[in-house]
Amino acid sequence: MTRIALLGCGRIGKMHAATIVRAEGAELTAVYDPVAAAAEEIGRRYGCTVAASAEEAIALADAVLIATSTATHADLIEASAKAGKAIFCEKPIDLSLDRVIACRQAIAGFERPVQIGFNRRFDPGHRAAHDATRAGEIGDLQQVIITSRDPGLASRDYLRVSGGIFRDMTIHDFDLARFMLGEEPVEVFATGSTLVDPTLAEFGDVDSTMIVMRTASGKLCHINNSRAAAYGYDQRVELFGSKGMLISGNRRAHHVERFNATTTGAGEPYLDFFIERYVEAFELGLQSFLACVASNTRPDATFEDGEKALVLAEAAIRSKAEGRFVKVGEITG
Amino acid sequence: MTRIALLGCGRIGKMHAATIVRAEGAELTAVYDPVAAAAEEIGRRYGCTVAASAEEAIALADAVLIATSTATHADLIEASAKAGKAIFCEKPIDLSLDRVIACRQAIAGFERPVQIGFNRRFDPGHRAAHDATRAGEIGDLQQVIITSRDPGLASRDYLRVSGGIFRDMTIHDFDLARFMLGEEPVEVFATGSTLVDPTLAEFGDVDSTMIVMRTASGKLCHINNSRAAAYGYDQRVELFGSKGMLISGNRRAHHVERFNATTTGAGEPYLDFFIERYVEAFELGLQSFLACVASNTRPDATFEDGEKALVLAEAAIRSKAEGRFVKVGEITG
Amino acid sequence: MTRIALLGCGRIGKMHAATIVRAEGAELTAVYDPVAAAAEEIGRRYGCTVAASAEEAIALADAVLIATSTATHADLIEASAKAGKAIFCEKPIDLSLDRVIACRQAIAGFERPVQIGFNRRFDPGHRAAHDATRAGEIGDLQQVIITSRDPGLASRDYLRVSGGIFRDMTIHDFDLARFMLGEEPVEVFATGSTLVDPTLAEFGDVDSTMIVMRTASGKLCHINNSRAAAYGYDQRVELFGSKGMLISGNRRAHHVERFNATTTGAGEPYLDFFIERYVEAFELGLQSFLACVASNTRPDATFEDGEKALVLAEAAIRSKAEGRFVKVGEITG
Amino acid sequence: MTRIALLGCGRIGKMHAATIVRAEGAELTAVYDPVAAAAEEIGRRYGCTVAASAEEAIALADAVLIATSTATHADLIEASAKAGKAIFCEKPIDLSLDRVIACRQAIAGFERPVQIGFNRRFDPGHRAAHDATRAGEIGDLQQVIITSRDPGLASRDYLRVSGGIFRDMTIHDFDLARFMLGEEPVEVFATGSTLVDPTLAEFGDVDSTMIVMRTASGKLCHINNSRAAAYGYDQRVELFGSKGMLISGNRRAHHVERFNATTTGAGEPYLDFFIERYVEAFELGLQSFLACVASNTRPDATFEDGEKALVLAEAAIRSKAEGRFVKVGEITG
Repeated sequence: MTRIALLGCGRIGKMHAATIVRAEGAELTAVYDPVAAAAEEIGRRYGCTVAASAEEAIALADAVLIATSTATHADLIEASAKAGKAIFCEKPIDLSLDRVIACRQAIAGFERPVQIGFNRRFDPGHRAAHDATRAGEIGDLQQVIITSRDPGLASRDYLRVSGGIFRDMTIHDFDLARFMLGEEPVEVFATGSTLVDPTLAEFGDVDSTMIVMRTASGKLCHINNSRAAAYGYDQRVELFGSKGMLISGNRRAHHVERFNATTTGAGEPYLDFFIERYVEAFELGLQSFLACVASNTRPDATFEDGEKALVLAEAAIRSKAEGRFVKVGEITG
Repeated sequence: MTRIALLGCGRIGKMHAATIVRAEGAELTAVYDPVAAAAEEIGRRYGCTVAASAEEAIALADAVLIATSTATHADLIEASAKAGKAIFCEKPIDLSLDRVIACRQAIAGFERPVQIGFNRRFDPGHRAAHDATRAGEIGDLQQVIITSRDPGLASRDYLRVSGGIFRDMTIHDFDLARFMLGEEPVEVFATGSTLVDPTLAEFGDVDSTMIVMRTASGKLCHINNSRAAAYGYDQRVELFGSKGMLISGNRRAHHVERFNATTTGAGEPYLDFFIERYVEAFELGLQSFLACVASNTRPDATFEDGEKALVLAEAAIRSKAEGRFVKVGEITG
Repeated sequence: MTRIALLGCGRIGKMHAATIVRAEGAELTAVYDPVAAAAEEIGRRYGCTVAASAEEAIALADAVLIATSTATHADLIEASAKAGKAIFCEKPIDLSLDRVIACRQAIAGFERPVQIGFNRRFDPGHRAAHDATRAGEIGDLQQVIITSRDPGLASRDYLRVSGGIFRDMTIHDFDLARFMLGEEPVEVFATGSTLVDPTLAEFGDVDSTMIVMRTASGKLCHINNSRAAAYGYDQRVELFGSKGMLISGNRRAHHVERFNATTTGAGEPYLDFFIERYVEAFELGLQSFLACVASNTRPDATFEDGEKALVLAEAAIRSKAEGRFVKVGEITG
Repeated sequence: MTRIALLGCGRIGKMHAATIVRAEGAELTAVYDPVAAAAEEIGRRYGCTVAASAEEAIALADAVLIATSTATHADLIEASAKAGKAIFCEKPIDLSLDRVIACRQAIAGFERPVQIGFNRRFDPGHRAAHDATRAGEIGDLQQVIITSRDPGLASRDYLRVSGGIFRDMTIHDFDLARFMLGEEPVEVFATGSTLVDPTLAEFGDVDSTMIVMRTASGKLCHINNSRAAAYGYDQRVELFGSKGMLISGNRRAHHVERFNATTTGAGEPYLDFFIERYVEAFELGLQSFLACVASNTRPDATFEDGEKALVLAEAAIRSKAEGRFVKVGEITG
């Protein structure tokens, strides 16, 4: 039984709490949130300790799940590592690549598992497509196309401090691209527009992006993003190879098709939003983490994966600013 | 080059004329219709002889395509056979089983091809499903399910003289069932209702039917019919066997899918009606006939197939009337 | 909080235990199984009382979930009702219609909820199709087609005492047909064959069936069953009406499509088996029951529904034996 | 009746000949090909004049269909215009933008219709998606994604003189992008690799490309290409807007789905190749041209469209060479 301390009791923290409670081999031991009421609600519901500080919560547990605001992630990773606890940290590690590098150096030599919350790697569909590709089912992988569109624009307050679309939203797709490609992108092109909400330009952000990346061996990868899709959360991955193609598609709440005078085969809008769409991914990601904790092995989504996804985001930002195919090696923090 | 005489220049006759003109190895030599204007229109369009009588048209050709009103089919088959011409006759041969049997006896010994217009046997999808089944792809065939629904109710005048839904509409499905099963149904159950238009009861007809048939080896077959489907012409065949299933589905004019706030993956209504849905089937059926004429071999849809489908229709009528599983052997004309 | 006693700790009992533990507002208070080890395993796992008898378990609870062998259902319903406890009983109530009728008479006047485990009524897809139909989305309902095929033949030992396919397997489809039709079938035709395993004939059973039913207003319903489908658990419902059609389809573990030199759009085999396919239905069915217990209202699947489904099974058995369209009114226990 | 002279009797010329013969209102009057045998074959088959020179063929007709090798297109356009004949010319106008500009200047003031063979604009699916978008069905168009992959690598001899993938293959997608976007791309990024056949690098070509374009209003467009797709000719267009999405998909020869122990819902490989996939597009494109000829109106795919697609190809070539987002205005021939 792995005792877990949950730091951060907001929307995603609540979801992690429910996932921990359902998981075999895990126990929600303590929770902490600077907003005491949020921690107390979870504490009451699941009968776990409500700690007075992050440190107190960390001390009570075998592993720490960090779901606090992004700015605190690196500090809490360092504190947890210092305390010798296994770590599961929500993405991104930090919005600043320098801070991420400093954090990596600070925990250098730490030997317990550190997993970053790149849930999509654990989605059953994406995982099956990945595994089939690695097993050679589509021959040599040549192209990866990732479509990733949120169902609706997040709040202005959230977006203003989000770090921008590449660090906040595309970060998932950069990680998924690396996972699927099986090799590192070496060049990144990115552009974007404010097509959903032109006022995002006020703080220098865009809501619609298109990216192209290329690996050393010439594999090509396209990512497209939008902050708002009318038909629900759109999460597709297309893997194209010399012997075929795999498409990991979207999920609906049920499988009813409608037929009438104007349409045939019409399904429900897609599941909305990540907590619904990736519910199994969160569960499988936690199970994978628990297995790594038990065997002290390397997680499927490591600290280095978190750093490398952020490097791609920085390359995209530079590419968009300079209108050129940026070499990933240029990005040095 | 096979010279073809077309008898009957109504809706289906016009379609056959266009198919003949497009076909390699065929020539539309002469047309005849008791309504002279109808024949003249086709004659003008394609530059062929407009005959003054069926006999005259028959005399000019190597093969006769009979697309006249049902009541004249048997007579024209006999006349064409007497003239030694290959015959392609639209279904049904006749609404009276006695007349069909008499016709069969009248042309006994005739050695040229006689093909009945069971177009669905030549539909590329249905044919591929049939061939895969015969090749063992789904193991032992166990169940056949045929869904066959017209896009809209035919005119009252047509329906009044149609011979009733089993002889007029289900006849196609009885033939398709035999084709797919690969063995003869020995028992037939049928029921029906007037759900589309209750006034059809005035002349003893129904517009919605469900049928179950069983072969000697125990294979099961279900047919359902409706005279009106809001979403277009619905033509599906499901073949279920010990190793899998094949479904031959519907066709749309194009492959655009729509996604919006209320629906995902929505396609066009299905192609409406048989002339559009089965356009390739008509062409392939004619080509198959031309090949049989050239080699003087037995067609894929014979006079006997026409007779046996009608026997099943008669068994269905008796089953509906008597509320029991009727043995096909009881139907003797 | 509703305290639940679980009677029966076999495969389906275990599934119900897990569902109860996950449900809000429910507590697994006690378990009982004549095989003590089975009850102890669940007791240990969830920390609940392992009762020495059904009576003891019933006494400890507000509601009783009966998941024992079929032969004991009616006795336990009577015992639970006598103790004044709400009842959730797995289907079928009993294999004997006489026993079901006697049980109904024995609990006459009992005013707590009695729900029968017809899980399919609670499947999100089937429920959405049902609700849309009742809301008029497809106009007047005319035809219902239920395809229900198990992924593989149950054990010979199970089948020998199952009561035969109509009472054991089709019972779910008879209930679903009534639920979807919104009115009572008044005539039943059924036939069947041993196509999966001919030796089932030794105890008078079949493994493949086709059924047609008709309601007083003329609505038509077809059910087909097979005890073994190579491609997984096949659970489809088609609702056809004057303005359109709804199809509630199958579920896969994920949504990856495969494309290669021989195929396009190929998905996973369907989820196998009912515990996986209907996992949400079991949860939603329990939640619905808990809501009925809380408000002391009539469940969506009542004792009378259990009895009426069995009446249809008896009508099907008689129809198959006598080869005729049996009036449901003939079946009187 | 429009009399048409067909110049060029190779593979695509033969296809055009068959399309002309089938079309209402068109007559195949004369054919010419420098390889006399090719022209004679078509002449014999359809009973039209086999001209001794292009000029002779042009003189006999009302309209000229140019399907010769690319290097002769501009000359034949100029010759036809000089003779006052309406022109349908296969794409591309020329591989050299300078030659295209010179041709445009040479025919300046010519008032008969000149249509370029961008068949995809006339595909029923692509056209329906286009029309629905223009009608506002998906709100403001934001992203266009075009997937275009050939079923297999063309011959080395063809590729060597093709002008490279952007001028030869992507040219169709550049045109389709402009058609769908409804406004001009102002910036182009392109990259590519030799993933299908590394030896293409010998003459500086690639077989796999990814492109991103941006319009003045910020609309984004992605194109991906491959010279070889194992599962057939892959031709998809995705239109994403503020209110929804439209996807125009691929076509199969029939609609049979396969289900077995390893797969469900598996269809046929896609139609292979453009002559099959776009058969209706070629017919509808010709009909549209005939209507323009009859009414002397501007075609849907003009000479200017041909030039603008080539400008985008030149921008892509420059972008790939220089690794930057190239402004379309930089390309001046």
